[in-house]
Amino acid sequence: MTEYTPTFYAIEWTAAGLRLLDQRRLPGEEVYLEFGDAVAVAVAIRDMVVRGAPAIGITAAYGVVLSAQQHGSHADWRSRVDQDIRLLAAARPTAVNLVWALERMRARLARVTAEPVRELLDEAEQIHGEDVSANRRMGVHGANLIGKGSSVLTYCNAGSLATGGYGTALGVIRTAWGAGKLEKVFACETRPWLQGARLTAWELLRDDIPVTLITDNSAAFLMQGKQVQWVITGADRVAANGDVINKIGTYQLAVACRYHGVKMMVAAPLSTLDMATPCGQQVTIEERPETEVLGLAGQAVAAAGAVAWNPAFDITPAALVDYLVTEEGVIAAPDREKLAAFTAALNPGS
Amino acid sequence: MTEYTPTFYAIEWTAAGLRLLDQRRLPGEEVYLEFGDAVAVAVAIRDMVVRGAPAIGITAAYGVVLSAQQHGSHADWRSRVDQDIRLLAAARPTAVNLVWALERMRARLARVTAEPVRELLDEAEQIHGEDVSANRRMGVHGANLIGKGSSVLTYCNAGSLATGGYGTALGVIRTAWGAGKLEKVFACETRPWLQGARLTAWELLRDDIPVTLITDNSAAFLMQGKQVQWVITGADRVAANGDVINKIGTYQLAVACRYHGVKMMVAAPLSTLDMATPCGQQVTIEERPETEVLGLAGQAVAAAGAVAWNPAFDITPAALVDYLVTEEGVIAAPDREKLAAFTAALNPGS
Repeated sequence: MTEYTPTFYAIEWTAAGLRLLDQRRLPGEEVYLEFGDAVAVAVAIRDMVVRGAPAIGITAAYGVVLSAQQHGSHADWRSRVDQDIRLLAAARPTAVNLVWALERMRARLARVTAEPVRELLDEAEQIHGEDVSANRRMGVHGANLIGKGSSVLTYCNAGSLATGGYGTALGVIRTAWGAGKLEKVFACETRPWLQGARLTAWELLRDDIPVTLITDNSAAFLMQGKQVQWVITGADRVAANGDVINKIGTYQLAVACRYHGVKMMVAAPLSTLDMATPCGQQVTIEERPETEVLGLAGQAVAAAGAVAWNPAFDITPAALVDYLVTEEGVIAAPDREKLAAFTAALNPGS
Repeated sequence: MTEYTPTFYAIEWTAAGLRLLDQRRLPGEEVYLEFGDAVAVAVAIRDMVVRGAPAIGITAAYGVVLSAQQHGSHADWRSRVDQDIRLLAAARPTAVNLVWALERMRARLARVTAEPVRELLDEAEQIHGEDVSANRRMGVHGANLIGKGSSVLTYCNAGSLATGGYGTALGVIRTAWGAGKLEKVFACETRPWLQGARLTAWELLRDDIPVTLITDNSAAFLMQGKQVQWVITGADRVAANGDVINKIGTYQLAVACRYHGVKMMVAAPLSTLDMATPCGQQVTIEERPETEVLGLAGQAVAAAGAVAWNPAFDITPAALVDYLVTEEGVIAAPDREKLAAFTAALNPGS
């Protein structure tokens, strides 16, 4: 792998506690917020100071460290930390990484010895470091699939801002760009939160990767004109049959990909894989306030009296996914059998 | 047909000249602008004070009346009016109704006698009145296709605001709603101009028709959940083979419709039919300034340095259109042969 120096840190543990880049204020302002307790971290996750499945998992893990710090002097500190873990887990319902990271923290909590805070911080930093390393490996696996001179379209933000660093979909794009394989990078603006316009454009430009934004409704027309060969997204959850839960609009892109013969690549770490959920239709899809659709950047844009339906995620059937890229390798045309075999090979003992 | 009383007039000829509802300021403000010369009308069309293929044709026709009024006292008034017609025709490139209406005005100009202004106004009012009447008939034809208890999704604004009154796609929806056939009406917000959120919601609510807005990227997920049975849009131009040029995003919806077995209905008057253009790929697709995508309501939203691709329309192949609804009847699965036969039957002499 080539060297890569991060141009910013969205999640950072400092002497003062947890430091998060407030993603709601990007790209206009680069504001960092500091957190000293788990309740405030849960609110930050809910209110999308930080978003992106791996990023909220890592953030929640650090939230557990803060909880131990805050409650460590109490006799019942373990039950207090447990309560904070439940609060953190409930902050957002769809991404599985949140639960996955908190389960790891809970398991570590069960075996802490002399220095709970130090040991929990070790675990959180390990989760964080493993995520960055997984992204780097995913980047290589994904970029290997892409032919020289290709153009790609990405969706929402599955970058450094959405992970521990480097990114899943944007990790693949960073690696492919670095290898000189990419002609053009397009990004959908991604309504209603405009993560594409605000966040993906911001972080790619930080890395000097030029990006062309399109409205979400232009993707099929872009494909009709043969302007992209790949759509590359992240995932908030991958069910045991390979169904992908990701930002609302991913499914519509996948349908358009299949119609045009454009390849659909989903880059997601193993922590996003939810083998306990048989298929996508069983995942709770978060519905967010309709004001997010009726307005933009705090301004009302829709006619007064209109109502809106605002699902935050959608379900892409595995049959529409050409490649699922993980840190441990690529699964082409994923399905239940391939995923079961893939995960069994990784955990031969289980 | 049932009675229908318009709740507003987007285009109106008054004693003072031409009066246009400024659609850029809806839904926040209901501001009417008055125009006394054709140059200002051309600028208004270019700047989208008025938009929608039939509406800009009607507006341009009244612009010709204003031109005759302004230049009537000059010896070379006919060439001055001709020059204004050229200016009006160049105001926007994609919709064919603009050229169609101006051709009618030019033909009338060639045979004016004693009272040029009066005679041109007659023609413009006739174009306007015929459009409203065509919409009413389209409404009936389209609504006849829709089964009771259906839910529909519409796109952009193909309503009273986009036509002489009543609307094409919204004309069908108004008629079907009036007949008690519709369960729910959904509208895509339609980035970047948000005609769905701003205009369609505004005019449907004026008529007490409840509407639920969705982001453009949610349409396929709505279809996956079997929440709509129809997508109904207007058209800016229909080529001789049935290809539909309409607001960017229409094609992506049509692809999603076909994948889900949702029916795609395009409602367009005969003035939108361009038999001189063999297929959609030959139509000039207007590209508008990238600032429309990079910002919203005058506010920059995208990261500084990002560029954007902003086609205003796209091309839906006829093969994806289930029904083309005109004032003279319905063409199911339109193609070159059916359109040729349909138009030949309407003009037996030609």
